[in-house]
Amino acid sequence: MKVGILGATGYTGQELLRILNQHPEAQVVYLGSSSSAGKSYEEIYPHWNGSNYALSEEEVPEVDVLFAAMPHGITAQRAEGLLQRGIKLIDLGADFRLVNYQEYESWYKTQHASPHLLQHAVYGLPELYRDEIQGKGLIANPGCYPTASLLALVPLLQKQLIKNDPIIIDAKSGVSGAGRGIAQPLHFAEVNENFKAYGVGEHRHTPEIEQQLSKAANEKVLISFTPHLVPMNRGILATIYVQPYEGVGEEDLRNTLAEAYEQEEFVHLLPKGTWPQTKYAYGSNHAFLQLKFDQRTGRAILVSAIDNLIKGASGQAVQNMNILFGLPETMGLGTKGLWP
Amino acid sequence: MKVGILGATGYTGQELLRILNQHPEAQVVYLGSSSSAGKSYEEIYPHWNGSNYALSEEEVPEVDVLFAAMPHGITAQRAEGLLQRGIKLIDLGADFRLVNYQEYESWYKTQHASPHLLQHAVYGLPELYRDEIQGKGLIANPGCYPTASLLALVPLLQKQLIKNDPIIIDAKSGVSGAGRGIAQPLHFAEVNENFKAYGVGEHRHTPEIEQQLSKAANEKVLISFTPHLVPMNRGILATIYVQPYEGVGEEDLRNTLAEAYEQEEFVHLLPKGTWPQTKYAYGSNHAFLQLKFDQRTGRAILVSAIDNLIKGASGQAVQNMNILFGLPETMGLGTKGLWP
Amino acid sequence: MKVGILGATGYTGQELLRILNQHPEAQVVYLGSSSSAGKSYEEIYPHWNGSNYALSEEEVPEVDVLFAAMPHGITAQRAEGLLQRGIKLIDLGADFRLVNYQEYESWYKTQHASPHLLQHAVYGLPELYRDEIQGKGLIANPGCYPTASLLALVPLLQKQLIKNDPIIIDAKSGVSGAGRGIAQPLHFAEVNENFKAYGVGEHRHTPEIEQQLSKAANEKVLISFTPHLVPMNRGILATIYVQPYEGVGEEDLRNTLAEAYEQEEFVHLLPKGTWPQTKYAYGSNHAFLQLKFDQRTGRAILVSAIDNLIKGASGQAVQNMNILFGLPETMGLGTKGLWP
Amino acid sequence: MKVGILGATGYTGQELLRILNQHPEAQVVYLGSSSSAGKSYEEIYPHWNGSNYALSEEEVPEVDVLFAAMPHGITAQRAEGLLQRGIKLIDLGADFRLVNYQEYESWYKTQHASPHLLQHAVYGLPELYRDEIQGKGLIANPGCYPTASLLALVPLLQKQLIKNDPIIIDAKSGVSGAGRGIAQPLHFAEVNENFKAYGVGEHRHTPEIEQQLSKAANEKVLISFTPHLVPMNRGILATIYVQPYEGVGEEDLRNTLAEAYEQEEFVHLLPKGTWPQTKYAYGSNHAFLQLKFDQRTGRAILVSAIDNLIKGASGQAVQNMNILFGLPETMGLGTKGLWP
Repeated sequence: MKVGILGATGYTGQELLRILNQHPEAQVVYLGSSSSAGKSYEEIYPHWNGSNYALSEEEVPEVDVLFAAMPHGITAQRAEGLLQRGIKLIDLGADFRLVNYQEYESWYKTQHASPHLLQHAVYGLPELYRDEIQGKGLIANPGCYPTASLLALVPLLQKQLIKNDPIIIDAKSGVSGAGRGIAQPLHFAEVNENFKAYGVGEHRHTPEIEQQLSKAANEKVLISFTPHLVPMNRGILATIYVQPYEGVGEEDLRNTLAEAYEQEEFVHLLPKGTWPQTKYAYGSNHAFLQLKFDQRTGRAILVSAIDNLIKGASGQAVQNMNILFGLPETMGLGTKGLWP
Repeated sequence: MKVGILGATGYTGQELLRILNQHPEAQVVYLGSSSSAGKSYEEIYPHWNGSNYALSEEEVPEVDVLFAAMPHGITAQRAEGLLQRGIKLIDLGADFRLVNYQEYESWYKTQHASPHLLQHAVYGLPELYRDEIQGKGLIANPGCYPTASLLALVPLLQKQLIKNDPIIIDAKSGVSGAGRGIAQPLHFAEVNENFKAYGVGEHRHTPEIEQQLSKAANEKVLISFTPHLVPMNRGILATIYVQPYEGVGEEDLRNTLAEAYEQEEFVHLLPKGTWPQTKYAYGSNHAFLQLKFDQRTGRAILVSAIDNLIKGASGQAVQNMNILFGLPETMGLGTKGLWP
Repeated sequence: MKVGILGATGYTGQELLRILNQHPEAQVVYLGSSSSAGKSYEEIYPHWNGSNYALSEEEVPEVDVLFAAMPHGITAQRAEGLLQRGIKLIDLGADFRLVNYQEYESWYKTQHASPHLLQHAVYGLPELYRDEIQGKGLIANPGCYPTASLLALVPLLQKQLIKNDPIIIDAKSGVSGAGRGIAQPLHFAEVNENFKAYGVGEHRHTPEIEQQLSKAANEKVLISFTPHLVPMNRGILATIYVQPYEGVGEEDLRNTLAEAYEQEEFVHLLPKGTWPQTKYAYGSNHAFLQLKFDQRTGRAILVSAIDNLIKGASGQAVQNMNILFGLPETMGLGTKGLWP
Repeated sequence: MKVGILGATGYTGQELLRILNQHPEAQVVYLGSSSSAGKSYEEIYPHWNGSNYALSEEEVPEVDVLFAAMPHGITAQRAEGLLQRGIKLIDLGADFRLVNYQEYESWYKTQHASPHLLQHAVYGLPELYRDEIQGKGLIANPGCYPTASLLALVPLLQKQLIKNDPIIIDAKSGVSGAGRGIAQPLHFAEVNENFKAYGVGEHRHTPEIEQQLSKAANEKVLISFTPHLVPMNRGILATIYVQPYEGVGEEDLRNTLAEAYEQEEFVHLLPKGTWPQTKYAYGSNHAFLQLKFDQRTGRAILVSAIDNLIKGASGQAVQNMNILFGLPETMGLGTKGLWP
């Protein structure tokens, strides 16, 4: 299986290469980069010393699957040509996640270059849409915050155990989620020993989460979503506050999540009382869930943890590739998280 | 003014000493410690090299004010004797924060040794209760999470701008909030590069916050309160979700907070769009607030940041001391936060 | 190939399991733990949720190879019985690293329980002693600081390019090197935002390094070795100051290291001017080297970086296992370091 | 006393303002900034909310003392005009540290704009040159690494207790030492969980240290100096390896340092066995020293710790100001380090 990566020097691009480099069935034959074309990969990332990967901005060669790890807007411009060549396209960006291109244009403040392709894309969250992914040519790999949030919420909404309002997602991410680009707020000394909220009420993952929750609930869902920056490299933890319907208790919620994921290799509802930590997922494709029904307030609290670069990006993309090509879903993704 | 500290080797005890050692009107004459009695202070904290402080477990000498920075339960046992000697007592622990001793016993799972003193205690949040603090003998210095939460919420409830349900406080704290005692979950390698929730639905600051919010709202308030552990030493950030009453807009909320704190030296409502970061408060007694009314959901989001050891503990205790003795409130507390 | 681990709940034990769990030829059949016997592995490490490993303190069953990841002293007591059963023993502790048991007893301040076995042990640094490792029954897996130091120094001493005095090794380690046990100096808040030297002139890896350097130089070598604690979880960086012989220049040193490692998969002399960072090795079995001859002082400076838990412990142990059983040396160890 | 700061938005500029804002005798009347002129200070640093400082690029007004916290090269251009106006100039940059302008031009790769002023400058390390500082108009405030290194070494060289070769300084710094400017290697995710050497054999503090050591030894001294980047915001720790003369023992070294600093408020030789940690100095103007004579190798190891932004920059600058104006040297600098 021949594989290419567009945007190979970003954090998700590099993580894709790390995983695919070890994948028994994948051979990485193309690493696209506009900024570093012509350089060897180890010039950018010296820990790849001894590998023979080179960066190119030439036309994508014949590959079976291409991962696009690029800023939003660019993949939409290039997708049609690639799909016409029969290349499976797994987009780690946002261009094909929102079914409604106007919503995309409103939140991303740019025109969508190929809205007609949206109907051909599938939202690549395997635990929810495994069947639809198989055989597709265009996979919209979910965002990191949506992955963490949806794994916890979708089964509960599908079973109508919780109301669709209020749903409050208070999410916290390591800094790699902001990408490799430099900026004053990402200077080490301004992030370290610091914690803050950002994009309050305006983060672009909001409509992506709402779209999927609305689909699950079968009615329009609006959420409060607040992301925060944690002084660490990797990991997302989402703390979610929901209102169960009258008569719904903790065991109903727990059983629903347990059933939803009992066959899943990567999603773990932890034993009662054990709360997820982002480090459980560090360097792995695993996700961890826990919940509690708070008798005092009648609300339930859900916590979900993933590695934002793996289950929240590159690992999930490889999981999607495995599904596309009929491979075992865990191939190349078997490792447990690093501890400590 | 002669000052003593009970529990002088804990993090809040040491922070008290650091502040009082620089205070123009305070002379620290007693450092109580059961575990390290007989040692010099610099044996425990070598950066105090050259100071002449010694630790003692002898009877508290004649002091004007005594700070108690001890595990809950102990101060309640010793308070009466101290108060009878005319010593002003500022308790940084939880023993005198809850007016209802049964609630204390239920959340802290221990008997209260002196419930009859509760009526003599005042909740030492100066920005709310400055007038009541003056002249009191027993100050219950607020908890760190409550300080951050109440500064944001109380004025809004007092003015009846927000409903008393739902109020969701998603709070994040640096590790010093857990104290100096050692434990597996506080091992550096298990906290670093990690983020987690803890005490979900069970944290003891919950009734303390609810008591004060209920007082402000003039009716019983129940909250969802979830604390999290951030891989940093200092700082609390509380992200708070509330429901304004119909017709209440962002400017109403903003104006109310602005008015509440316009005369305050330590509490800052930041300019619109500038969101608090815990580092703004690092090493200082300052608190920072921001809010947003989210048109989409009709909810408002408030963010509050303090240094948990200073405005959330020792700095606020010194602020209370200044009030008790008619000194300028900022005396000894003038520094801005360390950056970076 | 059946594999067991003694001391399976420590950091190196857990890292062994993580690697072996993915190893195509290894089947972990025994996880020994005295403190947690009877528990499932996921009770200790919840991120192993869904695995079926259990901890036991029963007799080691029939295994082909046993990894001992225990405090020093214990493996020496148990080694003979295990070896007599034909079990290959890879000791990640210090008991069989020093050929002179009196030196062991002097530095470790304990009696050696089986000095007669020392002659049967081989020092398991594959890049130096690959041939001796094959067919051995008892492998003394090197310490983390020695691994980083020896990879840089041994080839230069063997070729007599540098003097055997002064050799100054200023080494810096992440906190996982101190193990999982709790202690005041490992409390997150006392390590974070802090940097210090420890064990100055007294660290137990000193004689281990000196033994191997003396062997390479063919004369007694004494070093200055100072370890430091870095506020991070993983990684060792050793900065080494040496005195080349008259007439020896940078290219001589560089060529010697280049030749020594040109066939090695795991050891990388980086291109001139690219200095190792511990993160290059993070989560991988790779080691990175660089050097500079300083014309001004006539001294050379070497820098070496590894992941202390992998090339400095568990990864190297698996590398040794691969050698013992005639497997490709990189089996199960192929991943590049995590970035970022 | 009217005070101005040139370069007020950098980390050392901001730290100067933080200290001077609390200084009983200083009134900050001018904050110079070319990049942010016209803005209020709190626009750049929101934690200064409520202060009234504004940034200006206008001519420096009448001040008694001006601190220059600017990139090297610029202060040398502006110094003469300022000095002619009778303004005391304390330069936190490198322009007046090296007495030999050719050495400056060689290491800093730029022409020196006012070499004739070098003879009027004094190297502002108060513990060594207090008497020379009084009455001077131009103070070259020492670099951070030199401050840490010289405090440990100068008294030993002055007393001829150690040889002038080898002297090896292996130094480690927090990230604020690199300044506030953004760059890929300062991106949080590339520094965090990472440790590296940089500028090996080429760092510009090398000639500054050598100049002062040569002066103390009364002969030319060449050193090996290697700086490293620690994933923390503040702090420098220097580990120094020296060769005492025959017959010199640990007590000779210890007594010499003890005597040198026994009257000093800011420099602490710690009790035997207690090794400096950077956190001891965090947020304070204090410096901490320790040493050990290693019998095995005949070498001595010295460790020195400071806060790079305070004793290594802005605090020391204020200490110099206090000396210049005949104030108590500790004025405005009394705080102990923050713990934790």
